[in-house]
Amino acid sequence: MRTVQVELGDRSYPIYIGPSLLPETGSYLEKHGLTKKSTHLIVTDEQVAARHLDTLKQSLESQGYTAVVSIVKSGETSKSLAVYEEVMTTAIQGGLDRSSAVLALGGGVVGDLAGFVAATYMRGVKFVQIPTTILAHDSSVGGKVAVNHRLAKNMIGAFHQPELVLYDMDTLQTLPAREVSAGLAEMVKHGLIRDAEFAGWCRDHASELLSLDREALAYGLERGCSIKANVVSADEREGGLRAILNLGHTIGHAIEAVGGYGEFLHGEAISIGMAGSAMLAVKLGRDASIYPETVSMLKALKLPVVLPEHLPTDELIAAMKHDKKFTEGTMVFIVPDRIGEVSIVKDIPEALVREVIEELRRKEPEHV
Amino acid sequence: MRTVQVELGDRSYPIYIGPSLLPETGSYLEKHGLTKKSTHLIVTDEQVAARHLDTLKQSLESQGYTAVVSIVKSGETSKSLAVYEEVMTTAIQGGLDRSSAVLALGGGVVGDLAGFVAATYMRGVKFVQIPTTILAHDSSVGGKVAVNHRLAKNMIGAFHQPELVLYDMDTLQTLPAREVSAGLAEMVKHGLIRDAEFAGWCRDHASELLSLDREALAYGLERGCSIKANVVSADEREGGLRAILNLGHTIGHAIEAVGGYGEFLHGEAISIGMAGSAMLAVKLGRDASIYPETVSMLKALKLPVVLPEHLPTDELIAAMKHDKKFTEGTMVFIVPDRIGEVSIVKDIPEALVREVIEELRRKEPEHV
Ligand SMILES: NC(=O)c1ccc[n+]([C@@H]2O[C@H](COP(=O)([O-])OP(=O)(O)OC[C@H]3O[C@@H](n4cnc5c(N)ncnc54)[C@H](O)[C@@H]3O)[C@@H](O)[C@H]2O)c1
Ligand SMILES: NC(=O)c1ccc[n+]([C@@H]2O[C@H](COP(=O)([O-])OP(=O)(O)OC[C@H]3O[C@@H](n4cnc5c(N)ncnc54)[C@H](O)[C@@H]3O)[C@@H](O)[C@H]2O)c1
Ligand SMILES: [Zn+2]
Ligand SMILES: [Zn+2]
Repeated sequence: MRTVQVELGDRSYPIYIGPSLLPETGSYLEKHGLTKKSTHLIVTDEQVAARHLDTLKQSLESQGYTAVVSIVKSGETSKSLAVYEEVMTTAIQGGLDRSSAVLALGGGVVGDLAGFVAATYMRGVKFVQIPTTILAHDSSVGGKVAVNHRLAKNMIGAFHQPELVLYDMDTLQTLPAREVSAGLAEMVKHGLIRDAEFAGWCRDHASELLSLDREALAYGLERGCSIKANVVSADEREGGLRAILNLGHTIGHAIEAVGGYGEFLHGEAISIGMAGSAMLAVKLGRDASIYPETVSMLKALKLPVVLPEHLPTDELIAAMKHDKKFTEGTMVFIVPDRIGEVSIVKDIPEALVREVIEELRRKEPEHV
Repeated sequence: MRTVQVELGDRSYPIYIGPSLLPETGSYLEKHGLTKKSTHLIVTDEQVAARHLDTLKQSLESQGYTAVVSIVKSGETSKSLAVYEEVMTTAIQGGLDRSSAVLALGGGVVGDLAGFVAATYMRGVKFVQIPTTILAHDSSVGGKVAVNHRLAKNMIGAFHQPELVLYDMDTLQTLPAREVSAGLAEMVKHGLIRDAEFAGWCRDHASELLSLDREALAYGLERGCSIKANVVSADEREGGLRAILNLGHTIGHAIEAVGGYGEFLHGEAISIGMAGSAMLAVKLGRDASIYPETVSMLKALKLPVVLPEHLPTDELIAAMKHDKKFTEGTMVFIVPDRIGEVSIVKDIPEALVREVIEELRRKEPEHV
């Protein structure tokens, strides 16, 4: 088993990564001092519940824990205020009190939703993440929790750090292939922003990662979590450095918004976005190899790098302007300086972004 | 002008109390570094908007601030997730960003609602309180913000401290008499838990307070805020000491719940609750004078001290059991040791609480 410690002062917590952890959840909760006198809440989605809920429930029961369960529909639509209210109802009816914990069993959707419930139930109770997707190696570090408003994603939320994260790699074996690739997009992103060697390792071990080889996965998840944890430790509440985690996300979020969430998975959208940021870097005078290098890494992980024709440039630009990463009207981009290093660049001219978007539509980068 | 500083490390903030502050809001925002580049949000209710919104808007405009406004219905029903979502919509449509602030112009309802919006819009933006009720001297100290779930009051919320509180006593002149009394209940409560002299002062100056005499109000609000600020500084997130602020609230919340919010104002309900706690204290062996003393203070402020016949004891007890102040099934009460001092007493037997409730129904305490 590998452990990544997220250092955040008195909000520090461990991420346990390994096989066969889910059946041990009860013992881990005990080790971390969760009370057995209060009822806890498990939040999960239909897909995950069908595969892994029984194991979790049995583990809790065997250690003398009591929990009520809220099963939400799978997919981004569950990150809504309506579903949030339903989960709150289950918590209240289940009699959760201030010593209770909310356990998120699932991917980023369940993690974000359950985390926001934990952050706001009785003004905040304990939170435990049990991620079941690769993408969730990202969402389980940093304490960002949120639901969507119908007008904008992740608009309603909080910072709420978990007590512990229990990452059982065995649960990943049931993930659909497209979700695997999408999750690896955030993994290679962590290499692209802070660790060139790790980015290269992701490309070189792409086939092991895609086939969910446990050795490769364990290392990849550990490095991915560690890199994110370092960034978050330096800037818990996104005052500065933490923005580098948004590499590819400005264009990515616009693609998700204009595509109407559902067409693209988050990881796919930010993959195209990372290709775009690499292209922007070259246009801003960085080394010309950044773009083909980035694209080759993404393609190795079976991720898209070309923007589909049917997303109009004007709509993408408009979506970017609404993106909450624009503070006080200034347009900010995370731009690679080289593979493994990025800068936060302000005042990027709109015309240049348009140019990048147009070029991102070319069927295939010739020179890759 | 009087200033109470709430000491909470890097979340410390001042409460300015005085006449003629509302027209100076723009200058205060400037002094506290609020940006003029972003749009801000004013949340207020219909009653308050009719009387004081124009003054606030003019003050902001005159200093070059831009704000959108969300006017909610007056009353407790606006502390709901549905209204919360509406206010969020106004914030998003108004283009609020991470540098924006949410300004609460109103009483405790608007403060709690707007504060929860501020705590969760884009994971937290700045918050400014502009209280317009006497009760809000309580709600503007301590950072508790919340909305109600249909099953339980204040169940959904956060801790989110304001940047500053601007308490313009002139706005209080338009308060209905019943709201004045209800607000004074929390004021005298602050005396009853920590400052016998202040509790006595409230009784002795009851007629000035009830007639909104500015000198008396200024002193009362300052002492009330100071006492609460001291308690909150010692225990920001309600781990221990802060519970003493709940004097009268266990019975009070039950009265509100069973009476079906609307029959009793919060201050009226806790007034009966404080009479009940004093009675409980005597039954637990404290000095017999505690009860008549407490009752005389409350009556001087035109507050109720007798429980109406139509609230069944069983329902009140059931409501108390659902009250979130019961951690892990134990029944906790704040019990006066003498006027100006209280203890947190655990394991109060249900039978004793029933006895108190029955006696609280007697038309009038004979010996007062
Ligand atoms: N909080 C953060 O810091 C952060 C970071 C990145 C992404 N996110 C959020 O994460 C969300 C995306 O997360 P996600 O990609 O994990 O999505 P997800 O949670 O929707 O999971 C993807 C799909 O896989 C299914 N699934 C999950 N685990 C499975 C398993 N083990 N076996 C079979 N099926 C399984 C789910 O039911 C769902 O249909 C987005 O809402 C995004 O905003 C948050
Ligand atoms: N956050 C906390 O720490 C805390 C503490 C105590 C109470 N509270 C909450 O505060 C709420 C009660 O606050 P409240 O008593 O101020 O209620 P309120 O905000 O509903 O105000 C009472 C009534 O007076 C009206 N009003 C307000 N200011 C006025 C003015 N200047 N002139 C004329 N009318 C005016 C309002 O429209 C409303 O109808 C409850 O929801 C309670 O839970 C919170
Ligand atoms: Zn992402
Ligand atoms: Zn109160």
